[in-house]
Amino acid sequence: MEKIEVMKDVLSANEYMAEQNKEFFKRNNTLVINIMSSPGSGKTSTIVRTIEKLNDYKILVIEGDIAGDIDAQKIDKTGTDVIQINTSGACHLDARMIHKALEKVKDNKYDLVLIENVGNLICPTSYNLGEDFKVVILSVPEGEDKPLKYPKIFQVTDLALINKIDMMSSADFNMDNFEKIMDKVNPKLEIISISCKTGENIDKWVEWIKKAKENIG
Amino acid sequence: MEKIEVMKDVLSANEYMAEQNKEFFKRNNTLVINIMSSPGSGKTSTIVRTIEKLNDYKILVIEGDIAGDIDAQKIDKTGTDVIQINTSGACHLDARMIHKALEKVKDNKYDLVLIENVGNLICPTSYNLGEDFKVVILSVPEGEDKPLKYPKIFQVTDLALINKIDMMSSADFNMDNFEKIMDKVNPKLEIISISCKTGENIDKWVEWIKKAKENIG
Repeated sequence: MEKIEVMKDVLSANEYMAEQNKEFFKRNNTLVINIMSSPGSGKTSTIVRTIEKLNDYKILVIEGDIAGDIDAQKIDKTGTDVIQINTSGACHLDARMIHKALEKVKDNKYDLVLIENVGNLICPTSYNLGEDFKVVILSVPEGEDKPLKYPKIFQVTDLALINKIDMMSSADFNMDNFEKIMDKVNPKLEIISISCKTGENIDKWVEWIKKAKENIG
Repeated sequence: MEKIEVMKDVLSANEYMAEQNKEFFKRNNTLVINIMSSPGSGKTSTIVRTIEKLNDYKILVIEGDIAGDIDAQKIDKTGTDVIQINTSGACHLDARMIHKALEKVKDNKYDLVLIENVGNLICPTSYNLGEDFKVVILSVPEGEDKPLKYPKIFQVTDLALINKIDMMSSADFNMDNFEKIMDKVNPKLEIISISCKTGENIDKWVEWIKKAKENIG
C-alpha cells in the first residue's frame, strides 16, 4: 500500500524535526503546550484567559490556521508576542512549520509557548511538534460522546479541558456520563472543567501550567 | 514535491470511484446528500429529524466514523436502513468506502441516501463521494467566524444549515455578522437556520430536499 508508506516517511521526517524543536525549547527552558480541539471549542479564548492570569510569564503564542489571522489579531491585542502560521489547506500543524516559525524568535527566551493547532479532532494527533504537553479542549455543546467517536486525541493528550461549562444545562451535557466514557477511552487522562466566558476554574488550569513548568525545569 | 503528487493520484482515483457511485445512484433515481460538519454540530440529530418528516421516502443512511457505531445505533432505532463505515483513523470518507458500502444494498432502491461524513471541517471537502449535493452544518456555539477560518467547506457546499439556533443568545452568535462574513466567503451559498432540539425550521430543510429530489428526477 503505497499511501501508507509515504505517510510513514512523512511522519518520521516530522519526528526528526520535532526533536530539533524540542532541543531548542529545552535549551531555552521554555514550556511548550500544543492545544488541540474541534473548530469553535475555545482554543483562542483559553489562551487569552491564560495570558491574563500569567502576567509574570514571557509568553509566545503560535497560531495555526488554514486561512486568515482572526485569532492572531485577538492575541496581538493583549500585547503578547504572536506568530501566525497559515497551513494553506493542511488540516494540522507539523514540526517543520513550527521550526520555521522559531527562526523569527531565535534571540527571544520565552517561559511558555502556547501553540494553537488547526481546529480538528483527528489529524493533529499524528504530528508531534516538539511540545512538552498536548492538551485537548472539548466544549460542552459538542456532546459527551466525543471520546468514543474520536478516541485517539483523548489517548495521546496529557490533559482535557472541558470548556463552556456555563452552557451545561442548555447543551444536555452530563458530566457523569462523560466520566464513564473516559473510563473506557483513557481512565488516566486528567480533566479540568472551565468556562472561558465566566472565568470559572481558569485558576486550576493555570496551576496545572505552573506545575508543568516546574517539572520541566 | 512528492507528497503533493501522491495526493493528486489519490484524488484522481477517488474521482473515478465517485463517478461510478454517481452512475449507480442515477440508475436508481436516488438523491444523495453528503452531510459534513465539525464534531458535535448535529449531523445525526439533523438526519433523525429528516427521517421523521420524510416518512414517505425510502431512506438509507451511511454513517462515517473513525470508531464506534453510536450514531448508527441512533438511526437503527428509527427503523431506517443504516450502514456503518469505520474509517480506522482516516479523517474523511472517500468514494471507495461508499462503493464498498453499496455492495450491501445492490437490490434496494432508495429515494434518498444521507451520508454522514466524519466530523471534520477540512479533509472531507477534498473527496467527492458521488453525491448530488454537499451540505455543511455549522452549529451556533462554534461561532460566526468559522467561514473565515475554514473557507473551503463553505465554498464547495450547496447549502449551509445553521443548527442549534435555540442557543443563539447564550453563545453570542450574531446572524448579521455571520451573513456579512458569508458575503465575503461565498455570497451564493443558501443558508437555512434550524434547531434540531426544538424542531424549528426543519420543514424548510425538508422542503429543500424535496425540491432537490425533483431536480434530479
